[in-house]
Amino acid sequence: LGEQASQRAEQVNGELAALTYGALVRQLVVDYEDPGEVNVQLERLGYNIGLRLADDFLARSGAPPCRRFVETSEVIARVAFRMYLGVSARVASVAEDGSAYSVVFEENPLADFVEMPTALRDQLWFSNLLCGAIRGALEMVQYVVSVSFVRDVLRGDAYNEIRVALREQRYERAPPDEEL
Amino acid sequence: LGEQASQRAEQVNGELAALTYGALVRQLVVDYEDPGEVNVQLERLGYNIGLRLADDFLARSGAPPCRRFVETSEVIARVAFRMYLGVSARVASVAEDGSAYSVVFEENPLADFVEMPTALRDQLWFSNLLCGAIRGALEMVQYVVSVSFVRDVLRGDAYNEIRVALREQRYERAPPDEEL
Repeated sequence: LGEQASQRAEQVNGELAALTYGALVRQLVVDYEDPGEVNVQLERLGYNIGLRLADDFLARSGAPPCRRFVETSEVIARVAFRMYLGVSARVASVAEDGSAYSVVFEENPLADFVEMPTALRDQLWFSNLLCGAIRGALEMVQYVVSVSFVRDVLRGDAYNEIRVALREQRYERAPPDEEL
Repeated sequence: LGEQASQRAEQVNGELAALTYGALVRQLVVDYEDPGEVNVQLERLGYNIGLRLADDFLARSGAPPCRRFVETSEVIARVAFRMYLGVSARVASVAEDGSAYSVVFEENPLADFVEMPTALRDQLWFSNLLCGAIRGALEMVQYVVSVSFVRDVLRGDAYNEIRVALREQRYERAPPDEEL
């Protein structure tokens, strides 16, 4: 599904994309100094990107609607990661009540060529834009979530892990005009 | 040539790449205010990216060495644009002595989804990172150039045009060890 969809879209070379993303992170590090604030800003930028990508994703991916929150996990891991980053991810550590899950992946094209300065290594979540993008996209389908990295290969972890937790499910109401 | 090479590389979705690049430009606009300074900064970031990409490009593209400066035009327009941006470009307006040329292209994946505020429209060269990348990459093969946008679809031009002009050709000397 993701494979097919990714064939249809314009593609940009991963190395150019990674270096461009690295330039963005570096600029924010210069601007904000505090790595914690850089994490916040990256998440915020990603959130806006997620809001923008959601419609396009629904149109192009052919992914079925997710009636239960937990179903979004497979769509993100298997379809969206393949489609946008060209890598595979998998779902892990699903909460018993289905209200939280992890997206786990080894390869992270955004983090290619990154040498993290020691001073930042334990504080900066370099790819935090991805968390924001997931949050923004899920909000477009009425799931208010919090999203954060819990493991990052750049910090010496064996794999990357992003935790997604449901905070609130909104129920779409038809706009007033259509209620007639 | 570029087509084949681009198949082998990791690819990132063009929309994600465009939105990430847009976030970088917006951040610089906030930081520097003066659009002229944003142009300078984008070119500088691109230059560093070009320095990084050159080796990879030579290894993966299979492009022949350019013995004359003018030969770099076709490699950039036909191979590098395809490989890194996934779009076709062509060479135009080659100077009689071969010391300058234009790279012309219609589609610019970096500029997708951009709505340029009127205040910036005539001053910002939104995709100026590309100029820096070309300058950096050419410097790695001993051509010191100046590179600038002269037309941009975002400004209402019919196509995008980047002008590349040779300033100095350096001659590579083998490092001392190998001169023996």
